[in-house]
Formats: sequence, structure tokens, C-alpha cells
Amino acid sequence: MNELRHLKPAGKAIFHDRHTTKAKELLEDWEPGKERAFAVVGVPLSKPSISHSGASFAPDTIRAALQSYTTYAGESGMELTDGILDFGDIYMNPTDVIGNQDRIVEGLSDVFATDAAKNWMLLGGDHSISYASIKAFAEKQTVGVIQFDAHHDLRNTADGGPTNGTPFRRLLEDEIIDGEHLVQMGIRDFMNAAAYADYAMEHGVGVYTMGDVDAVGVTELLQREINRLAEKVDVIYLSIDMDVLDQAYAPGCPAIGPGGMDSKTLLDGVLFAAKQEKVRAMDVVEIDPTIDFRNMTSRVAAYVMLQFMKGKTEKGL
Amino acid sequence: MNELRHLKPAGKAIFHDRHTTKAKELLEDWEPGKERAFAVVGVPLSKPSISHSGASFAPDTIRAALQSYTTYAGESGMELTDGILDFGDIYMNPTDVIGNQDRIVEGLSDVFATDAAKNWMLLGGDHSISYASIKAFAEKQTVGVIQFDAHHDLRNTADGGPTNGTPFRRLLEDEIIDGEHLVQMGIRDFMNAAAYADYAMEHGVGVYTMGDVDAVGVTELLQREINRLAEKVDVIYLSIDMDVLDQAYAPGCPAIGPGGMDSKTLLDGVLFAAKQEKVRAMDVVEIDPTIDFRNMTSRVAAYVMLQFMKGKTEKGL
Amino acid sequence: MNELRHLKPAGKAIFHDRHTTKAKELLEDWEPGKERAFAVVGVPLSKPSISHSGASFAPDTIRAALQSYTTYAGESGMELTDGILDFGDIYMNPTDVIGNQDRIVEGLSDVFATDAAKNWMLLGGDHSISYASIKAFAEKQTVGVIQFDAHHDLRNTADGGPTNGTPFRRLLEDEIIDGEHLVQMGIRDFMNAAAYADYAMEHGVGVYTMGDVDAVGVTELLQREINRLAEKVDVIYLSIDMDVLDQAYAPGCPAIGPGGMDSKTLLDGVLFAAKQEKVRAMDVVEIDPTIDFRNMTSRVAAYVMLQFMKGKTEKGL
Amino acid sequence: MNELRHLKPAGKAIFHDRHTTKAKELLEDWEPGKERAFAVVGVPLSKPSISHSGASFAPDTIRAALQSYTTYAGESGMELTDGILDFGDIYMNPTDVIGNQDRIVEGLSDVFATDAAKNWMLLGGDHSISYASIKAFAEKQTVGVIQFDAHHDLRNTADGGPTNGTPFRRLLEDEIIDGEHLVQMGIRDFMNAAAYADYAMEHGVGVYTMGDVDAVGVTELLQREINRLAEKVDVIYLSIDMDVLDQAYAPGCPAIGPGGMDSKTLLDGVLFAAKQEKVRAMDVVEIDPTIDFRNMTSRVAAYVMLQFMKGKTEKGL
Amino acid sequence: MNELRHLKPAGKAIFHDRHTTKAKELLEDWEPGKERAFAVVGVPLSKPSISHSGASFAPDTIRAALQSYTTYAGESGMELTDGILDFGDIYMNPTDVIGNQDRIVEGLSDVFATDAAKNWMLLGGDHSISYASIKAFAEKQTVGVIQFDAHHDLRNTADGGPTNGTPFRRLLEDEIIDGEHLVQMGIRDFMNAAAYADYAMEHGVGVYTMGDVDAVGVTELLQREINRLAEKVDVIYLSIDMDVLDQAYAPGCPAIGPGGMDSKTLLDGVLFAAKQEKVRAMDVVEIDPTIDFRNMTSRVAAYVMLQFMKGKTEKGL
Amino acid sequence: MNELRHLKPAGKAIFHDRHTTKAKELLEDWEPGKERAFAVVGVPLSKPSISHSGASFAPDTIRAALQSYTTYAGESGMELTDGILDFGDIYMNPTDVIGNQDRIVEGLSDVFATDAAKNWMLLGGDHSISYASIKAFAEKQTVGVIQFDAHHDLRNTADGGPTNGTPFRRLLEDEIIDGEHLVQMGIRDFMNAAAYADYAMEHGVGVYTMGDVDAVGVTELLQREINRLAEKVDVIYLSIDMDVLDQAYAPGCPAIGPGGMDSKTLLDGVLFAAKQEKVRAMDVVEIDPTIDFRNMTSRVAAYVMLQFMKGKTEKGL
Ligand SMILES: [Ca+2]
Ligand SMILES: [Ca+2]
Ligand SMILES: [Ca+2]
Ligand SMILES: [Ca+2]
Ligand SMILES: [Ca+2]
Ligand SMILES: [Ca+2]
Ligand SMILES: [Ca+2]
Ligand SMILES: [Ca+2]
Ligand SMILES: [Ca+2]
Ligand SMILES: [Ca+2]
Ligand SMILES: [Ca+2]
Ligand SMILES: [Ca+2]
Repeated sequence: MNELRHLKPAGKAIFHDRHTTKAKELLEDWEPGKERAFAVVGVPLSKPSISHSGASFAPDTIRAALQSYTTYAGESGMELTDGILDFGDIYMNPTDVIGNQDRIVEGLSDVFATDAAKNWMLLGGDHSISYASIKAFAEKQTVGVIQFDAHHDLRNTADGGPTNGTPFRRLLEDEIIDGEHLVQMGIRDFMNAAAYADYAMEHGVGVYTMGDVDAVGVTELLQREINRLAEKVDVIYLSIDMDVLDQAYAPGCPAIGPGGMDSKTLLDGVLFAAKQEKVRAMDVVEIDPTIDFRNMTSRVAAYVMLQFMKGKTEKGL
Repeated sequence: MNELRHLKPAGKAIFHDRHTTKAKELLEDWEPGKERAFAVVGVPLSKPSISHSGASFAPDTIRAALQSYTTYAGESGMELTDGILDFGDIYMNPTDVIGNQDRIVEGLSDVFATDAAKNWMLLGGDHSISYASIKAFAEKQTVGVIQFDAHHDLRNTADGGPTNGTPFRRLLEDEIIDGEHLVQMGIRDFMNAAAYADYAMEHGVGVYTMGDVDAVGVTELLQREINRLAEKVDVIYLSIDMDVLDQAYAPGCPAIGPGGMDSKTLLDGVLFAAKQEKVRAMDVVEIDPTIDFRNMTSRVAAYVMLQFMKGKTEKGL
Repeated sequence: MNELRHLKPAGKAIFHDRHTTKAKELLEDWEPGKERAFAVVGVPLSKPSISHSGASFAPDTIRAALQSYTTYAGESGMELTDGILDFGDIYMNPTDVIGNQDRIVEGLSDVFATDAAKNWMLLGGDHSISYASIKAFAEKQTVGVIQFDAHHDLRNTADGGPTNGTPFRRLLEDEIIDGEHLVQMGIRDFMNAAAYADYAMEHGVGVYTMGDVDAVGVTELLQREINRLAEKVDVIYLSIDMDVLDQAYAPGCPAIGPGGMDSKTLLDGVLFAAKQEKVRAMDVVEIDPTIDFRNMTSRVAAYVMLQFMKGKTEKGL
Repeated sequence: MNELRHLKPAGKAIFHDRHTTKAKELLEDWEPGKERAFAVVGVPLSKPSISHSGASFAPDTIRAALQSYTTYAGESGMELTDGILDFGDIYMNPTDVIGNQDRIVEGLSDVFATDAAKNWMLLGGDHSISYASIKAFAEKQTVGVIQFDAHHDLRNTADGGPTNGTPFRRLLEDEIIDGEHLVQMGIRDFMNAAAYADYAMEHGVGVYTMGDVDAVGVTELLQREINRLAEKVDVIYLSIDMDVLDQAYAPGCPAIGPGGMDSKTLLDGVLFAAKQEKVRAMDVVEIDPTIDFRNMTSRVAAYVMLQFMKGKTEKGL
Repeated sequence: MNELRHLKPAGKAIFHDRHTTKAKELLEDWEPGKERAFAVVGVPLSKPSISHSGASFAPDTIRAALQSYTTYAGESGMELTDGILDFGDIYMNPTDVIGNQDRIVEGLSDVFATDAAKNWMLLGGDHSISYASIKAFAEKQTVGVIQFDAHHDLRNTADGGPTNGTPFRRLLEDEIIDGEHLVQMGIRDFMNAAAYADYAMEHGVGVYTMGDVDAVGVTELLQREINRLAEKVDVIYLSIDMDVLDQAYAPGCPAIGPGGMDSKTLLDGVLFAAKQEKVRAMDVVEIDPTIDFRNMTSRVAAYVMLQFMKGKTEKGL
Repeated sequence: MNELRHLKPAGKAIFHDRHTTKAKELLEDWEPGKERAFAVVGVPLSKPSISHSGASFAPDTIRAALQSYTTYAGESGMELTDGILDFGDIYMNPTDVIGNQDRIVEGLSDVFATDAAKNWMLLGGDHSISYASIKAFAEKQTVGVIQFDAHHDLRNTADGGPTNGTPFRRLLEDEIIDGEHLVQMGIRDFMNAAAYADYAMEHGVGVYTMGDVDAVGVTELLQREINRLAEKVDVIYLSIDMDVLDQAYAPGCPAIGPGGMDSKTLLDGVLFAAKQEKVRAMDVVEIDPTIDFRNMTSRVAAYVMLQFMKGKTEKGL
């Protein structure tokens, strides 16, 4: 007898409704030769963080949160059907923090080189991983970046090395991206230093504060900037630091505070951006599941992934 | 000596302000013959839930939350003075899950048959209890239902039996209510399957997504639908699944997520609906106090009860 | 129809096994004329505490914990059958902290004057309540006290008034009890000041450290001291500060720390003491349910009550 | 050797970015003769609270939260550079609750008499401290008060003494402020008693409900009332009870509930008010860090302080 | 390029020490034909519980806890090297509670029929699963049972059906095991009813209280009883209800309380029992990970598994 | 007016009993030239940990826990009166993990070179800091080490670099200490790999398992080993990994589990060791306050410090 009654693999003995596809079921392990519309890679690094951060656990919790969602978007009556190639996670050495950042470049360079997907989703980790991720992404193309963040992340590296406060400074200094190809959305009062606002201005970075977002609207600002970037760069990369959200909506970010976006604004923004042809990659960073409440912030992150896929799918991109 | 100085019954030695009536003080134990404007019944069943749920504790926590509110509504300068008959809770057998659902029908059938109240409030429990509650309510009258929910709850029953994902499917299949007499408000992307959206459409169910609520407004939609229903049914029953709220406002629902209503929208909707003559019953379901933060979700539920009573009282209903 | 199917009073719709009596069912509301072997009074005062304390919630949580226990003591094959008269709780004014202490004396004086019980159990509250309780208890009789505590509680009152660090100092200063009629059990290193150890010695207080308890055994020490006291006083009062326990066993006390008793030692001690004829009252204090883990400390407290009753019942006292 | 390599004082060995000033660095210990634009005093009293409250810990957590903010306000491109004189905290006796309130008057009277600052920030504690604070502030000038609160705080004092429900009643009864010089903003349904709404009306108190705030806007209402008050009083004092916020935004207040302000509305209101010349003092009260989530509510309080300073700084006040 | 640098499957990018084998690595998915010394099956059922229980999550958390342990037992210098066949979990229907119990019998019957392992470990779930498990185990052999438990679990089934309070009653009533073949170890005061202690005695059940364990020692008692049973039954099954432990050692059991075993006693007992030839199966039940502290109780459970394997391995069984 | 009534420095407005000295009051900031019996240094490094660890917060929480203790040891009637020089904490760079370890050596080298104290207490941090600490301590003397730990911490460094699993391996490999001068106490089953037990044996490390501790007693073993070491080394260093304790007693260690020491055993051991002349330094490591319960583990650590000082003081060392 090879079939044992009622037995399922460990952890898989969960309720299944025959008419429902969970978003997590879209994940497929990558194998050479497989090609899909989407791919995901986990980048579980958070030791570079200035503050204590367990963001290295977020690739797991975000993937798990996909189990809380279905593939059906009733607002537009469409279904996500394209698989997501899961390349797994990049291995991190416990003590070689700088080396880990190099290895992310190497690993993602190999991943992107597979050309296995049209659209890429990277799951941090803290924001330091965006330096490595964008560096790998920019190896063969000019990259524009739209960063959702309460912070500039343009700190000097002399004071603490390549922390989560420095990725965009390092991308500019290493000439991986051009200052004019970086747009920051949701920058907040009392979360940044004047020196770095000045640095942004001097380097032509497009900076939109929360006041701008509230006054003009996130899609209006995105339309303006994506149109501008589209003429200058090959591809656009979204970098979503979840602390762009108000602490009420993202209680699990290390740097929480009031005065940020609500989740609908972010979700609308991601959907709009995803519908644009040149937008081809997105990371989601700065979620520390060890301090979150009921994985709320990872749930938002999973929804961000779904909005990204919805936009792409609706436009056939 | 019969009067002992300073002694109060256990748990009652709490501060009392002579000018303040707590909403919880409106609760009166039911006795045969008593009649009031309002009645409440607890339905502490959550074992039918697809996911692990302690919603069976919510009748206790919602009643307790009434102690955090007064009876005075300063916005309109009015006072809730009508008592709430408390019929207590329906007894649940630990292992006979299906039998419990039958007993809810029997118990509520007896409760409604007392004609002791003009307006009924049922406290779940998970959403499976609405099947039983509406079945009992529909024994002598045609019932229309307005369901606030992120989900259709129209799942097939073959895959898991009468879970909290099926109450409205079962009401339609058992012809207890008509598909055209069901209105769903707040349905969300990635929370449902296409098959059940199709089922809703095929059966004439009125479906309003969160996008519709955001675009049109909850009172406008309710006015439209209550007017329509009022011509076709004897009474209207509100079924409030608290997960219609965004996770920031209802952190204690089993199925939390972003992109839902804020509490003011729900409270406005309930107030508006309560002012309509044919609306005569309401349930509040899907609150799991064991995973909530500071009973926030039960506090919203108690406020929902107060809005229901405020609307009724203002209109003399 | 007066009997509604399946309906129970709110909060009472819980599982009942026909052969099982829960210890909580022994509680009976006091009424003039009722007499029982045991009585309980809640004294929900913790504002006098030196540190922030929610010990005022403990009378509720200890009573509730009785629901986790049955009345059957299989070790000796006996059953608790005597009812516990519940006199309820003493009312506390939110701002009149000193007045509250006076009112506890008045309230308990009235309670004790009923002579309704042979044995009394007082539920604090912080340790400040023992001053008031013992003062009331000593109105008509000479009282000896056995205090389980990590601390002497003999602080001067000039520095903070009648706090939870002072009850035994005040009892001695006000000559309510005699120093030689006070025994302290479980006093710990680094939890007290030399000045108060000296005060204890100067006033003839019997002091046993945790080292003494570990070396000699709790029942041996109790036997010795109860025999001594029994010759000198009319009645003996046990005052159980739960912080006599190691933090692993009583995680919900305000002043937790390592190096204390395990729960079996305390439970053995209470059982032994309860079997002694002159022991006629006991308080349980210093449990803050707001910081406990799963009401563990209240569960120990309820067990302490049961041991007290078991000892009395076995000896027919 | 006097300089030890890499050693920093305990608790100060934290990351420092040379270009970033943390708001907490603005705090300077007061010394006689020092004068600054701002001063802060902690008033760690919460034993007068009707419910169990650890608001006495909030001066510590709010000061600590200033470490999460910088001094740079990018929305208007300005920097906070004025120091904040820190007068420390007022000592509280563990049992002398009423005496503590007298000592707050004495202590703050001495503080205000230094004339060391142009603008004062008081950190509660519960709302009872505002009676003492405003009494001290009104010793030499006529004071108008704008209170952000879900509650009137006009309770009778007979039932519980000078609790956190009574400060404004006592200020009126003791003729420290005039009813017409008190404005209440954010009053909520089911949080108050009719008797106290009537009392407010009879005494000419300006009452704006949450419905008013939602309909008219917080700055519009403040402009109207500050203009009115400015003609009648010497100075205006803001009293910010954080429970004016919806529970989603201020989860750490003792009296949480839905239907309140979001944080942006409050922060906008404080900024607007701070820009008015006569506004010269502000307290922030009713934050209980022991029940908060990740000090969210203290983070909002720190931001409220920053908005107050931003408004003052921008207007050179 | 088929090998991507630094990429590992999702969730597997964790630190690996070349010389260390984690106990979890012993798990191997079962396939027909595979035979090993040990096998494990998850039985994630807890809806039959009298109280709210998430014990259905324990198979996952216990397996995960094996990752916290290595395979090396330094006390005796031996290594666990035999693989553990993992048969996965038995699927549970959300509403068909009784049917689930039948399906456990069917599923485990198939599992045991594979004869793939010499020793079986079943992971509950609540204690109701032991009825089904022992029933399946007893299909072809006479079974003796040694139950570690604070409770008899001999309740009548009329009051609540086949709950977690009834498994051994049902086994006796259905004549699956003989009363004299059941031994209960760790039975506690005030956790049981006299009626069920009487039932145990009438049916010849061997009952050892915590007092017996403390007085005689767990290995002494086990030796005595295993020797007795070994002459009467084909195999012996250990049923470990983790609430046999004191609440300080097993904070995650639904029915916690003081006065139980410490973990070393339990671990010693399991090791001793495992060394006996006829002991061939063990279940571990009544761990609710949703209320545990840091999975402490699942960590003990995993250690219990290791002791079982250590005993078997040392004796070559 | 220079004296403001009732004002105290921020955070210092706490209750003070004139006869009580808190252990924390023994801390004095170091200044060149100051000499005391004791000194303390914080080493807030935990990024080298194999698992996610917030042990870097422990120097703060352990110092804070000293506020929960007094200086009086009633068991022996003595008082701690010698001050503790507080050298503060060593600064850690956010990304330069290896450099931090070098800087600890440099910083502690400078600290020890002051000769300011007779006895040194180092507060980790994870166990990786003991390599640096002992290296600095061994610069001018031969050091013997007694390590309380569940683990050998002798891992190869090739797999993860200088993690918290390697300090003693590195000390041996770098010939900073001799294998025969290292004693490990409390080594547990299933927490180590055979390869490292072998390594210990090959290098002459003295290994005592928990079984040995339970069988022989901690003071007996210490006496034996300290006597042996005293003949061979200049000084003895205690390294206390708090995970040597059972998880019930040290819930805040990253690597918790059952089967360890209880706190009294550890406290007895430290007291005994401290009485030995050659024991001159001690570190306490592996406490992660972010996952602890009520800082229980830091409370034990503070008590460990007190026992160390008690032993030294009693012997005049
Ligand atoms: Ca960032
Ligand atoms: Ca950020
Ligand atoms: Ca629903
Ligand atoms: Ca729903
Ligand atoms: Ca005490
Ligand atoms: Ca005490
Ligand atoms: Ca207030
Ligand atoms: Ca308020
Ligand atoms: Ca059991
Ligand atoms: Ca049990
Ligand atoms: Ca270690
Ligand atoms: Ca260790």
C-alpha cells in the first residue's frame, strides 16, 4: 500500500477550497530553463542596520503572507495566473557583513543573468540590500529608481560603513545610478538631516515629501516622474522601504513614526507604477517580523507584491 | 448588622460617577414578559472556522467593552435610555460542531419568538453563526441582508462543511434568503476566488467592493440598496464581519489585511442603516479577542452596537 | 414560553461535566445569617505600592482561577465541600489612598464581626492591605502573624507614608501586634536593608531566610514557630506575599527575582499551617495580573487557597 | 593614561552620524541663569487616574522618543536649533496623592518663576496634572486653554476626588480659568455624560466634537478660537490628551476607542496653534507606556513637541 | 549557468556548521519501502478540546524545535544516527470533528501497517488524539499504556462527546485496552473529580499522583509498572500530556498550574521507559504554541523525542 | 532662586528610603586615579551571533536591574559597601563586526591597564566577546577560565567566522589560554556536536556535564577545578553564559532549552568561586533583553554580580 489514507506532507495538511488559488501557490522553485512573468529572491540581511533589526526574517514572513491572499482581483475582475519563479534566498555569513553585501551582488547578478523573468521582486532584509540589488540590476542597463521612504538614505559611509542608511549615497558615489535618476517619495520631517537633503538637491535627486504626496497625490507624482525617467533610463526599479507608511499601518518597521502614508496610498502607487512598461523590478525592505504585530507589515508587503503583479498583468507586461 | 461598610459584590467595587451611565448598565437580564427596544444574544461558536479562531470569546469582550462607553451621544445631544434585554449566550457542545449550529437556530428561534424586542443584536462567534441566526430570523418573514465583509462567504460546502466561509452560500442554497436580497459591502481584492464572485453575480447578489465604497461612499450605497430591498423584503438584517475594516482598525480579526474600511466609515454606515425602518437585526462577528490588541476590535464592536441603538433611538424605531 | 432552548446567562454557557465540581462553585454570596467554614473578601488596593502595581486586579483573577481547579484532592482522597462565603470587594476611592486604608479596617471589621466563617481568606491588593486586615482581625483577639515574604516590610513611614513596604512596621508601631508574635519566612539577600533587619531583631521578630528554609525545611520551621506562637496568641494569621516565590514560579509579582521558593514548598507550608488549630486567617498579596504570564501567579494563589481549605477540612477545623 | 580607547559612558555607546542632530540632543539640564526658547518638565503622576494607569512613566518614554527624531524639518527646510531646558521631573510621594498635586503647583510655580524659557512643555502623567500646571501658569497672568480631548474632564469631584476626569471642572470652580476661556476639541460620542456637556454649555466652554473637527477642519476651528481668546487672555495653554486620537493612532492611552482624530490632524493642529503668539505652554498627557505598542504613543507625543517647536521657531516666537 | 552563486532554497539559507548535525536533519520523508528505527506522524487536531486550544499547531512547532538540538548526547558520548521517517500530518476537516477522529484511526492504521519503523512518535494535537492513535496501534496487538498527565482523562462522554478529557475512558469502554493495562503518572490534586478517580480504581487503572512521584521517584515507579505490564501486553505506548509538568516548565499547555513535575524528571522518565524493549510508541500532546512563551513547551517536547530515541539507540531497540 | 521645590533630574524622581542603598548606587563613573574593589565594563556586541540576538542591550538592562537589589546580604549579615567603577560601554561600529572584536581587545586592554580595580565584571554581549575580553585579560598574566555554559563554544571558524560559537576555540588556537586551563561546567546533551566534545578532550579541556553537576554538586566540582587551576595560572576568569540555566530560569537567552541548572545552583557556584583568591574577573553573556520576560534573565545576571561581590567582600579579596 503506497497511498496512506488522510496523510499529507508535514505542514501541508491545511484546508483547501477547490475553487480558490492562494497567491502562495504561484511560487515555483526556479530551475534552469524555466521562464515566467515574475521572479522573487529573498535577501535576508539586516546586520548592517544602524539599529537592532530582524529584517532578515522578512523573506520568510512575506512569502508566508502570500498564503493569506488569493489570486483573484475582483475590483477589475482579473486573475493572477502567471507563476512566480522563486530563486530562494541568498546565503549570509554570520560575521562577514561586508562580504555578504558583495555576495548579494554576485548572487543577484547570476539571478538576473538567467533572464528567467520579465519582472523581479526582491525581498529584504534592510535597506542596505538595495545597493547590492540595484548594482546587480544595473550591470547591463541604465537604471532609474523610485524610492518610497521616510528617509533619504544618503548618509556618509565614514561614520558607520555601508549601513541601511547609505544605499543611495553609495549608488550615487559609485556611479551606479545618476542622481537625476533617483526619485524619493514620502520623505518626512524630523527623520533626516539637512546635510542629506542638501546632498540630494546637489545631486539632482527628485525629492517629494509626505506634504507633497498629501497635496498632489501619489499617482500624479509618479506619473510625472516615471514619464521623465522613462526618457532617460532603460529600466525603473522601485525600492519600497515600508517605513514610508505611518506607524499605524506598518507597526513592524524598525523606524516607525506618525505622519506617514496610509496603506491604500502606497498600494495605489505601486499599482500605478507597475502599469508602466519600464518598471521592471521592485524590492520591499525594512520589515522586522520579530517586532511586528501579527505580521501586519509583512501582510502589506505581500499585498504590495500582488499589486505589482496586478499592474503588470493588466498591461500584459 | 446586614449592611457591611464599603463592601460591594465581587467585581462591582468600581468607580461610579453619579452623573454618568455606562452603556453596559443598559443590559438587563431577560425574563418572560419583559419588552424593550433592544435585545442582545451571544453566540459563542468559532470551531467551524477554517483558521484557528477564538471568536467564541467575543460575546464576553464586547459586553465588557460597553463598560468603556457612556450612553450619551453629544454629537446629536441625545441619550440612550432604552434597556437592552440580555438573553445570555447559547450553550455550545465541545465536539458537536454541526449540532451547535442547529441549536443556534433553535435557541434564536425561541428568542425571536418572544417578540420581546423591536431590534436584535447578535454577537458572534465566527461568521458561520449568521446562517443559523438569519435562518431563525427568517422563519416568519422575508429577510434582506446587508453584509459588511471583505469576503463573499459563498464557498462550496463540500470542501469543509458549514465553515465561516459558507453562511451566505448556505442561506441561498437552502432558499432561506434570495440572492437578490443579499448585498455585500467592502469586498476586497485578493481575498476571494473568481468562482464565488461569479456565483454572487449569477445569483443576483449585490456586490460592492472597497473600491466602490471609496468612490461612492458608504451611505450613498446603503441608501440605494436599502431602498431597493425595502420594497421586496419584510425586514433587513445587517451582518457585520469586522474584517471589512483595515487591519489598522481591527487588529483582532482572524483574517486581517490592509486595504479595508476605516472605523468611521463603518460607524457612519451602521448609523445610517439603523435609521431605516426595516433594519431590525444586526450581528457582529469574526472578532478573536485572544489575538487582539487591548480589545480594540471588541471596542469597535461595542461602538457599532451603540451606533445601531443611536440610529434607532433618533428615529423612534 | 419561559424556557428558551440552549440559552444560559451571559458568561455561563460553559462546559459542565456532571461529575466535576469546580472550586469556584464553592463561592456563595454572603447574606446575613449565612455561616460557612470559609469566607473570602477582596481588597483591591494597590495605589500605596512603591512601584507601579496593578495588584488591585488580583481579587478578580484569583477568583477566576478557582474555575481552573476542582474540589477533589486525590492525594488524600478527600473533597472540599464546605462553601466559601464571598463578601465581595471593598470599594476604593480613586484618589483617597489613606482613606482607603481606613475603610479597609472598617469594612473588614464589619465582615469579621459577622462571625460568619471559621476561617478567613483575604485577597489583595498589595501588601499594604495586611496592616488594615490584621488591625481589623486583632480588634477582639491577640494575633500572631506568619509572613511569607522576600522582604521584611518594616520600612520607616516617613519616607513614603503607609506603602506596601511598611505594613508590619506599622502593626508593631501601633502595637496591634507584638514583635515576638511576628514570624517572617523566606527573607532574601539583596532585597532588604540592614536597618530593617536590625529593626526586626530589636523587636523580637522571628526571621527565617531562604537559606534557613532550604536548610531546615518549611514545615519544620513552621511547626516550631506555630507551636511557640500558639502559646502566646489567640489566633494566627498567615500573610502570603507571593514574591516569596522565585520569579520562575511567580512571574506576576511586582518585585520578582531569583533565589526564592518553588511553589511546592509554599504549598506544603500552607497546607501544614492550615492544619494548625489557631491559624484562622490568611491573606494573599502582591500579584499584579497586568504583568503576569497567563495568570500563573493567580493560579498559584488559588491553589494556596485550596491548600488552606484542604488543611482545615482534613482536621475538621 | 586618561583616554581609554573606544570607551563611552554607559548607554552612550550608540551610533552617531556627524551630520545628524537628534532632537534629544536639544535637551540641556537647567541651571540657574540659563535661558532658552523652550523648556520641558516631567510630571510623573498617574495615581489619581480613575482607571489603572502607568502614565507616570511617560516623561521618560517621551524624552527617549526624541532620540528617534532629528532636528531637521525638510517640509519647510528649517532646523530646530534652540535648546530645550530640561527641568527634570517633579518628585512624587507614593501614598500622598493629594499632596503630590499641591507639590506640582509649587514645583511648577518655581519653574515658571525662573522665566528661563519663552515656551513651556509639560509631560504628564495623567490629565489631573493639568489642573496643577495651569494653576501655576495662571499665577501671574490670565490663561486661556485649548484642550484636545475625547472627554470633557468636567466631572464632579465628590465621587472620586481630584481624578484625571476633573481638572477643568476644578479650574473653573476654583476660578483659575474662566469657562469662556476654555475650548475643547475632539469631544466624542459615548465618552461623556450629558450632565457634563450641560455643565460645559452653562459655563460658556467652547466645545467642538469630532464631528465638528471632521466637518470644519482643525486649523479652521483653532484659528477661530485662538483669535477669540487672544483678545481676552494673556496667554494660551494647549492641553493635549492623547486619547483625542483614534485608538489606531494612539494605542497606549488608557481610554482608547475608535472614532477619533488621526495623527496628522493633531500634528497639523499643534503646528498651527504654535504659530500663534499667545500660545506659550503645552502639556501632553494620558500616555501609559506600559500598555502601548512599541512606544507608538510616546512617539506621537515627541512629534507633537517638535511641531510645537517648529511653529514657534518658524515665527520667531 | 545552472548554479547560481550563494542561492539556497527559500528558508534554507541558514548557517551550517560542517561538524554539527541538527536533530531536524534526521527527518526523512516517508516513501514506500523505506524502513528506519523511528517514525513520526503529526496529528493536528485540537477542536475536541474542552477549552480553546491551538494544539493543532504543535506538530509544526515540535518539528521546528528539533532544529534547536543536535544529534549528539555527550552525557553518554553517543550520537543519534538513525533517521526518523516523517509520515507528515493527518488532514483535518474544519467542521467534521468526529469524522476527524475516525480518519486519524484510518490514517494511523495505514501508517502502522507499513511496518516501516520499529518505534513510533505521534505529535498531537490535544489528548483526544490518543484514543485514535492507541486504537490504531492496538489493531494487531495488546497494548499497555503509560500516561504522564495531571488528569485522569476518564470523563464521561455524555456531557461533551469525545473531548480531550475522555480518551482513556473511551479506550476502556470500547475495550481497546484493559484498565489494568493503563498506568497514570503525575495525577494532581484539584485537577480531577472524585468520580473519575473512583472509575480508575474500579477498572484497575494504576494511578500514581505527583506525591507518589515525589516520594518514590519516577524511574522506580516506571520500572515497577513496566515490568508488570511487560508480562501482560505485547507493546507499551507512552502518552505524554505535557501538562504533567509544572507551569514553570511547560507554560504553553492549555491547563497549566503549579505543583507538577520539573522537566528533568519527565526527561529522566522518558529515557528510562525508552530503554525497555516493549515500549514501542509515544505520543506528545496538549501543547498550544499560540499561548506558549518562546515555544518553550515545544522545546521540551522535542527533547522528549530525543530522549526516547536516545534510550532506544543505547539499547539497540 | 536656585533651588526649585520638588524638582529632581529627569529619571531620578523616584522613591528613596533613607535606610536603603540600592546596588545600582554602588556604580561610580570611572575617572583616572579612582581605585575600587570592583569595576564593570559593558561590551554591547551581538552581531557575531549565529542566531538573531539583541544581547547588545544587556549591559543596559543588567545595570538597570541592579536598581532592583539592595546592598545588604542578610544571610550572612553583611553589606556591600565597595564602589563599582563603571567604565561605560565599548563603542560598536554598525557594520565592522570583526573590527569591533579588535576594538574590544584594545578598549579592555586599556581598561585593565588602569589597574583601577581588584575584580572585573564584563557585561556582554554575546559569547564572542569573551575571546576579546580574555585576550586582553591575558596580556600580562596566565589565565585559567571556568565557563558556565550549555555549549562547548569550540566550533570551527571556517564556517561562520568568529561567532558566539567559537570564543574558546579561538582562545586555544591563538594560544591565549591553554586547553588544560579551561573548565566547562553545565554542558548539555543535544546542544553540541561530537566533533567539539572530541576537540575538548584532545586539548585537555575540563568538561563537566549537567549530569555531573547534578550528581556531584557545583561547589564540589568548582573546588576541585579551582584548586587544580590555582597551581597553574596567575588568575582565573569566570565566563557565565546564562544559557547554562534551564529555560524556566533564564527565559531571555537566545539558545533556551530544558535540562539546565536552576538559578540557585548557579548563584551558589558563583559565590563559591568568588571566594577563591585567584578568581579576578567574570563576564556574563548571552542575555537578549528583547525576547526576555520582564528582564528576568538580566535580574539573574545582576544577582550573579552581587554574589561575585559578596564572595569577594566576605573574603576581603
Ligand atoms: Ca530606507
Ligand atoms: Ca526608511
Ligand atoms: Ca465573513
Ligand atoms: Ca470576512
Ligand atoms: Ca511584602
Ligand atoms: Ca515582598
Ligand atoms: Ca482628559
Ligand atoms: Ca481623555
Ligand atoms: Ca490529558
Ligand atoms: Ca492533562
Ligand atoms: Ca556560550
Ligand atoms: Ca551557550
